[in-house]
Amino acid sequence: MLTRKEYEAAQKRAAVMIRDANIVVTAEEAGRVEVADFGLSRLDREGAQILTLVATDRIAAKIIVLFEGQTLPEHWHPRVGDDPGKEETIRVVRGTLRCYVPGPDTLREGFVPQGQQDAYTVRQELLLGPGGQTTLRPGTKHWFQAGAGGVVMYSFSTVARDILDQFTDPNVQRTTRIID
Amino acid sequence: MLTRKEYEAAQKRAAVMIRDANIVVTAEEAGRVEVADFGLSRLDREGAQILTLVATDRIAAKIIVLFEGQTLPEHWHPRVGDDPGKEETIRVVRGTLRCYVPGPDTLREGFVPQGQQDAYTVRQELLLGPGGQTTLRPGTKHWFQAGAGGVVMYSFSTVARDILDQFTDPNVQRTTRIID
Repeated sequence: MLTRKEYEAAQKRAAVMIRDANIVVTAEEAGRVEVADFGLSRLDREGAQILTLVATDRIAAKIIVLFEGQTLPEHWHPRVGDDPGKEETIRVVRGTLRCYVPGPDTLREGFVPQGQQDAYTVRQELLLGPGGQTTLRPGTKHWFQAGAGGVVMYSFSTVARDILDQFTDPNVQRTTRIID
Repeated sequence: MLTRKEYEAAQKRAAVMIRDANIVVTAEEAGRVEVADFGLSRLDREGAQILTLVATDRIAAKIIVLFEGQTLPEHWHPRVGDDPGKEETIRVVRGTLRCYVPGPDTLREGFVPQGQQDAYTVRQELLLGPGGQTTLRPGTKHWFQAGAGGVVMYSFSTVARDILDQFTDPNVQRTTRIID
């Protein structure tokens, strides 16, 4: 859970980073950045800020912002009925993204959040700077971490059903509770 | 057809506009902007410049550049087998896009390219500035025109099969011939 004050502070900080990355968003969009603490109540360490530009029943385009030191927990996009699962292309606009996928453990630049060794199982490190991108096939476990100064990136994907994403950490809850 | 000189000049001009719109692209990407004259050999009047950021068998994300006075010919994305046809969200980054879709004729700001009255049949005018966007459902006829100074926009879509797009103008050929 997050206090309303924490939520709104993160929302504003993310909106500033989006604009500093020279991405054009409207005032309405800047005001509806979603802050996700994944139910872990430690947003500065594990969380993400997400602005959905478009989401239809076929595709989604989002802007994802991670603050310096913030990690988006390991997850994957499972099959849902006829849909083989979300395919997602991440494209960095500003900062450096540490992206972790299955493969040999090459984790060097990044780190596993403290006390969370079991919740971050894939450790092949991809470092993506501005203009760098990677496509994550459905079902592929992945987690993201911001380098120095944070990171701003696009996510271009097939239909997003965030609520059905599966996380390695059993404590994750995809819906953020806000308390006043 | 276009001469190689014309093709490369348009490519460079589009890359400059993309960067002037503060969109981050790599040198490799800037060098592979596709120039489309739609087989009409009058690029300054009817044509488009397109940079594909990602294209998989499920989604595509592209940057489309139209020069001032340039019109992207009327077309639609038909059903292909099980696919109901391409769904496309256009999001403007810089300049004003004149977007035409079915509905009452409200064409005021734009114009139909000279001598092409029969090739531009839908005339409901949407004017989209930076941060403005619209989603075009499959099968919807549409055409685009740049306002003053040209326009730079994103296209977020389901799988793109440009070669199967259907155009109102029977003279359109989707593949651009380059002559040396």
